[in-house]
Amino acid sequence: MNAPLLNDTFIRACMRQATDHTPVWLMRQAGRYLPEYCATRAKAGSFMGLATNVDYATEVTLQPLDRYPLDASILFSDILTVPDAMGLGLSFAQGEGPKFAKVVRDEAAVAELAVPDMHKLQYVFDAVTSIRKALNGRVPLIGFSGSPWTLACYMVEGGGSDDYRLVKSLMYSRPDLMHRILAINADAVALYLNTQIQAGAQAVMVFDSWGGVLADGAFQEFSLAYTRRVLSQLQRSHDGVVIPRLVFTKSGGLWLPEMADLDCEVLGLDWTVNLGRAREQVGGAVGGPGKALQGNIDPNVLFAPPEAIATQVRHVLDSFGKPHTDLNNSGPTHIFNLGHGISQFTPPEHVSALVEAVHSHSKKLRQTA
Amino acid sequence: MNAPLLNDTFIRACMRQATDHTPVWLMRQAGRYLPEYCATRAKAGSFMGLATNVDYATEVTLQPLDRYPLDASILFSDILTVPDAMGLGLSFAQGEGPKFAKVVRDEAAVAELAVPDMHKLQYVFDAVTSIRKALNGRVPLIGFSGSPWTLACYMVEGGGSDDYRLVKSLMYSRPDLMHRILAINADAVALYLNTQIQAGAQAVMVFDSWGGVLADGAFQEFSLAYTRRVLSQLQRSHDGVVIPRLVFTKSGGLWLPEMADLDCEVLGLDWTVNLGRAREQVGGAVGGPGKALQGNIDPNVLFAPPEAIATQVRHVLDSFGKPHTDLNNSGPTHIFNLGHGISQFTPPEHVSALVEAVHSHSKKLRQTA
Repeated sequence: MNAPLLNDTFIRACMRQATDHTPVWLMRQAGRYLPEYCATRAKAGSFMGLATNVDYATEVTLQPLDRYPLDASILFSDILTVPDAMGLGLSFAQGEGPKFAKVVRDEAAVAELAVPDMHKLQYVFDAVTSIRKALNGRVPLIGFSGSPWTLACYMVEGGGSDDYRLVKSLMYSRPDLMHRILAINADAVALYLNTQIQAGAQAVMVFDSWGGVLADGAFQEFSLAYTRRVLSQLQRSHDGVVIPRLVFTKSGGLWLPEMADLDCEVLGLDWTVNLGRAREQVGGAVGGPGKALQGNIDPNVLFAPPEAIATQVRHVLDSFGKPHTDLNNSGPTHIFNLGHGISQFTPPEHVSALVEAVHSHSKKLRQTA
Repeated sequence: MNAPLLNDTFIRACMRQATDHTPVWLMRQAGRYLPEYCATRAKAGSFMGLATNVDYATEVTLQPLDRYPLDASILFSDILTVPDAMGLGLSFAQGEGPKFAKVVRDEAAVAELAVPDMHKLQYVFDAVTSIRKALNGRVPLIGFSGSPWTLACYMVEGGGSDDYRLVKSLMYSRPDLMHRILAINADAVALYLNTQIQAGAQAVMVFDSWGGVLADGAFQEFSLAYTRRVLSQLQRSHDGVVIPRLVFTKSGGLWLPEMADLDCEVLGLDWTVNLGRAREQVGGAVGGPGKALQGNIDPNVLFAPPEAIATQVRHVLDSFGKPHTDLNNSGPTHIFNLGHGISQFTPPEHVSALVEAVHSHSKKLRQTA
């Protein structure tokens, strides 16, 4: 039996319910900018050593919560655990991005792909259960996965890419193979997220980190359609509690109108998007349908002095405008976040300034006429 | 006295005049994907050796025209010649991006910046004059520069960047210094482009390659405002002939409505933008004001087989729709291009398939009701 949720601000905002302040959490909030994270990682020996060890994963997930009054926690893991479980062999060389030992670039490699046995991802579900217990109801725990397209990018490229040449070559040359990869990825991601929910995740987020590199038309066909396929398979509640679903397409601002009918509660936005315009497009009205919006300050703001950070935080909150305050209806809400993961070079004390500014200014904003 | 222009399709489309086909040229059309370019570059010894030698620069500018029936040529040069002339010391290591020997990160370095003496860029103007002569009226010659913000990115970072951390740190911490850099860059770029026009450039393009990395609000203040400052200083004609001005902000599709009132003729678009929607937003009507649109196929389409390339070309042309055909009025026009520079790995014969498909399908498109 899990402890009752003491701070439900994030979950309420996901469900477009009124809150007394704008909840805030940060993508990659458990990460290298924190000295305590680096200490745990040194003990673990490697990134995957950290991610696959339940105690370490629990420890680093809770570290930012001990420093900052954040309104949500997110499972410490990687977006590429699913293709790793498919047998592609994920590794992280020191100071480099992810690498796969096997790549998926031809018909034979695609034919071998299948939805992986979830037992291979038991370390993730164990971490979810352990973190949930350690949180003891402080804040909700968000589970996550990469989107089908984003996973495909890494599976075809074999790692990060500047130009997505290989994955797009396959997509334009052999769309049939690409659709096959994406269908398997979508079913695997849905099963993975459902198993996280059963293990204790109180919300789930799909990171479509590379949807924004696609051309108009290709995005809808090769990314959005498979995010939809994931969402259609997700369970809506667990133990009688609704599980909000968040979708974040980095650089996807142009497609926001087409994302309005995704079967999810929250849309994440990067810093190029004007939150006020996004609210008009998809935020809905009080009493009507709509999406909660999450984002979207530039992580590089955190390199400015604290006063400048507070100014930029106010700018982002003000661009969304006053969230609705109607306790009897749902309506437009905002979840504050970065528009991308926090930089490893961020001074930790600057994060305090950001969180403080979000909480204080967002309370004031609710008091305006 | 320059030869009369034999193919004015590109210039007419820039001016929103009717043409019998959609003109096409490719960003970085003179480049490493062409074996003849690699041969000339080998003779020159280095990228800057190539760019600063009038004969070599002329030779490589004309190479793609000898292979493909392109409708425009573009000066072979680099977007970073202006900061090099400011004394920052540009170099290109083999297989790497640009590097500056000096960087601009503090008050002292900013204080030293000034609009450079155009004599230091004489090699560029000599190349323009030489290329124009060698073209002998085949197609028009486009001159270009990086945008003030794009130049500033490299000047502060000292080279390419994944996260723009240093330039954004300066921008958020010391906006006064950033504005000072951008003002100098804008005045330098305007003078540089005007001198290219006087040397023979028949159109000029501002590459705002990194405007799209900025947050909403910051883009308008730190990039768009200085592109405006450049445009306000450009001469509108030379020797009695109008000089079209093109602006391309990569990843700037969300700000298209705000770019509608830029004092230029053409807006470049990357592949994330739907050309039909862009036409509605800024293309204007027959007889009314508006912008010509340039773009926007994903360069990775060129890795697909020729039939797939032709399909994607038709998709892009169809998304713009039928250009106007009224010989007595200006109206919506499209200039076909990639949404970014061509990849060095592109098979040269695939470019033939693209150009052929643009010309043939765009003629058919004009015959539809």
